[in-house]
Amino acid sequence: MKQIRTQVGIIGAGPAGLTLAHWLKQQGIESVIIEHRSRDYVQARVRAGLLEQNTVDILKDLGLADRLVREGHAHHGVYLSFDGERIRVPFDTYTGGRHITIYGQQEVVKDLTDAWLAGGNTLLFEAPARQIADYDTKQPKIYFEHEGEEGVVTCDFVAACDGFHGIGRKTMPKNSYNEYSITYPFSWLGILANVAPSSEELIYAYHERGFALHSLRSSTVSRLYIQVENEDHIDNWTDDQIWEELSVRLGTPGWQLHSGPIFEKSITPMRSYLIDNMQIGRLFLAGDAAHIVPPTGGKGLNLAIADVKHLVDGFVEYYRQHSYRGLEHYTQTALRRIWRAQDFSNFMTTLFHKQDDHGSFQYRLQRAKFDYIRMSDAYAATIAENYVGLPFDALTRFP
Amino acid sequence: MKQIRTQVGIIGAGPAGLTLAHWLKQQGIESVIIEHRSRDYVQARVRAGLLEQNTVDILKDLGLADRLVREGHAHHGVYLSFDGERIRVPFDTYTGGRHITIYGQQEVVKDLTDAWLAGGNTLLFEAPARQIADYDTKQPKIYFEHEGEEGVVTCDFVAACDGFHGIGRKTMPKNSYNEYSITYPFSWLGILANVAPSSEELIYAYHERGFALHSLRSSTVSRLYIQVENEDHIDNWTDDQIWEELSVRLGTPGWQLHSGPIFEKSITPMRSYLIDNMQIGRLFLAGDAAHIVPPTGGKGLNLAIADVKHLVDGFVEYYRQHSYRGLEHYTQTALRRIWRAQDFSNFMTTLFHKQDDHGSFQYRLQRAKFDYIRMSDAYAATIAENYVGLPFDALTRFP
Repeated sequence: MKQIRTQVGIIGAGPAGLTLAHWLKQQGIESVIIEHRSRDYVQARVRAGLLEQNTVDILKDLGLADRLVREGHAHHGVYLSFDGERIRVPFDTYTGGRHITIYGQQEVVKDLTDAWLAGGNTLLFEAPARQIADYDTKQPKIYFEHEGEEGVVTCDFVAACDGFHGIGRKTMPKNSYNEYSITYPFSWLGILANVAPSSEELIYAYHERGFALHSLRSSTVSRLYIQVENEDHIDNWTDDQIWEELSVRLGTPGWQLHSGPIFEKSITPMRSYLIDNMQIGRLFLAGDAAHIVPPTGGKGLNLAIADVKHLVDGFVEYYRQHSYRGLEHYTQTALRRIWRAQDFSNFMTTLFHKQDDHGSFQYRLQRAKFDYIRMSDAYAATIAENYVGLPFDALTRFP
Repeated sequence: MKQIRTQVGIIGAGPAGLTLAHWLKQQGIESVIIEHRSRDYVQARVRAGLLEQNTVDILKDLGLADRLVREGHAHHGVYLSFDGERIRVPFDTYTGGRHITIYGQQEVVKDLTDAWLAGGNTLLFEAPARQIADYDTKQPKIYFEHEGEEGVVTCDFVAACDGFHGIGRKTMPKNSYNEYSITYPFSWLGILANVAPSSEELIYAYHERGFALHSLRSSTVSRLYIQVENEDHIDNWTDDQIWEELSVRLGTPGWQLHSGPIFEKSITPMRSYLIDNMQIGRLFLAGDAAHIVPPTGGKGLNLAIADVKHLVDGFVEYYRQHSYRGLEHYTQTALRRIWRAQDFSNFMTTLFHKQDDHGSFQYRLQRAKFDYIRMSDAYAATIAENYVGLPFDALTRFP
């Protein structure tokens, strides 16, 4: 049996696990990562692409942002459209110069993986974790398989950054947390297309035919979404129909949506999920392992990185000052941002999706909120500051 | 048959009708008011008591605010409580010095009635309007009864300020408007008590047993509310039980609720209602005749006064410049503030009322919003600016 000894055993080589490993290393704490999937699979997985200011700052601080800075697109505002009227919420003026960066999650994963392996560190791909044991002792263990062999990581702490379907959350005793979940009554049909973005910044649109989002991955790849029913199937949509629907829903006078070859399309349900305890003994969960937000606010990846920040704070305090205090408060600290993100994601989702008949009271309240954004700097600022991500100290201002 | 000729015939001697009459007079436009109820009834009717900055400014401008300034209570902030934690949202810092004034609606009505009659103007009490006729001609008429006699007001315009149950809205053809309505799944049990307020400013409280509100009418009269079920009945509650419930729900460490003799108690349903057209020909609706908001935001009276402002603008433009343009746009102009008030009232209602199980996802989002108020000046400012009332020019910034 393969035996690995380290300080922090990390399950999952996604953004959370990789950032945690790099950050711990910077702080002189050893870790290893085991990842269920292959390197190719992980790096090809299309996910979010919106990095908050906090996330970019952390990656820069870790020296991992060279390509991100070179190839990422800084966005200093976002377009909001309602019934064909489009307005812009600028970030800089409302957030003291903070902004977002568009850079695909798989690019982040590639950069962090390359740097981790180039540094001679341990990361096992195709190494599924089978069991997390002894988390209530000082020597927890991760049993895994790799290249037909069984192995075990013996460590001081286990960090489960293994996503929604990972064994991290499944290991938590059912009576150690409450579970919260909403499935929205609509889904997103998303496409990737080889066409230059038709807008330099994102466009969120309410239209009487439903929500649409214009996003991008690069200067040659557009990412676009339309609201569809949960029962809908991707085979019901031809490429022409998708472009037509996008064009109508995102439309505003004097603007043209450019179409191009679609190279990926799929339908994703919209879900909010979380558990309100992210730790038991020496096992800690981070990222999707503990929470899912609907993609409307672009918060998933950024929440994962924020979890990691709080975990790192806790580990550093433990190894330097022999204090367990930070780790003890990990869940409590992380949950403040998680609930903030859940609320903001819910706000953006309910503001821009068609929920009730066009013209209903519900629709009119959505419309009233859109009009209020135009009336009020304060209201526009709440959207800007949530969108670029609240600074870490903003969440600890109150007891 | 009693014959009255005037420029603007006003139905209803509530705050809207009276303010309209005074304001028109200031602008050299004649009006008469007919009121269904007796003077005693109207002046004893307990209604709202929260005047926005706009409302106070208008009454001051009309020279009708002497007693209001003397006896009203200026409030420069509001307390918000959640699960027993209480915070304060200050108005001045977030709104450039604007504030609210606590002064009973019936006091406003008394002041305006006294001044109107002292000025030798016409106001008929116990004069129910029976029909609004010829509103599609240049000589609309209000048929009414008074002292056993029939009468008619012949005028240039009819202003129906006659409340939710008045004939103004009933006269509008059904196909001239859309109707919007929400009945909330809870009601307010409200009391008036002879006891000094236990807080110098209002307290809105979410508690796991339901919403509570501490308000006041004067330095010796407290006004308090608790959320109850729609099916509840006032006979189910003893005075002691009401005080006990208020004490628990409003409770926060180091604070004591003072109780005293209750001299009025009742249960009121919570409703949002509006029609999206407030005019037909030469008939115009203002105030409760066209819209109801749940009392949570304190907006009902203030919306009525804002309607009157827009009506006056229109009448002045008509009589001075012979232009019908302002009156033509009356509904459109008024609806911006009405939908803003509907949204804010809905926001305050859903934020502080128990809607789902304590601890549910819904509850957690309410909690997240409360926490966000503490994190964010921008979010706190949205509450402050809506609460004191947006300036008139804020609503016309966009096309």
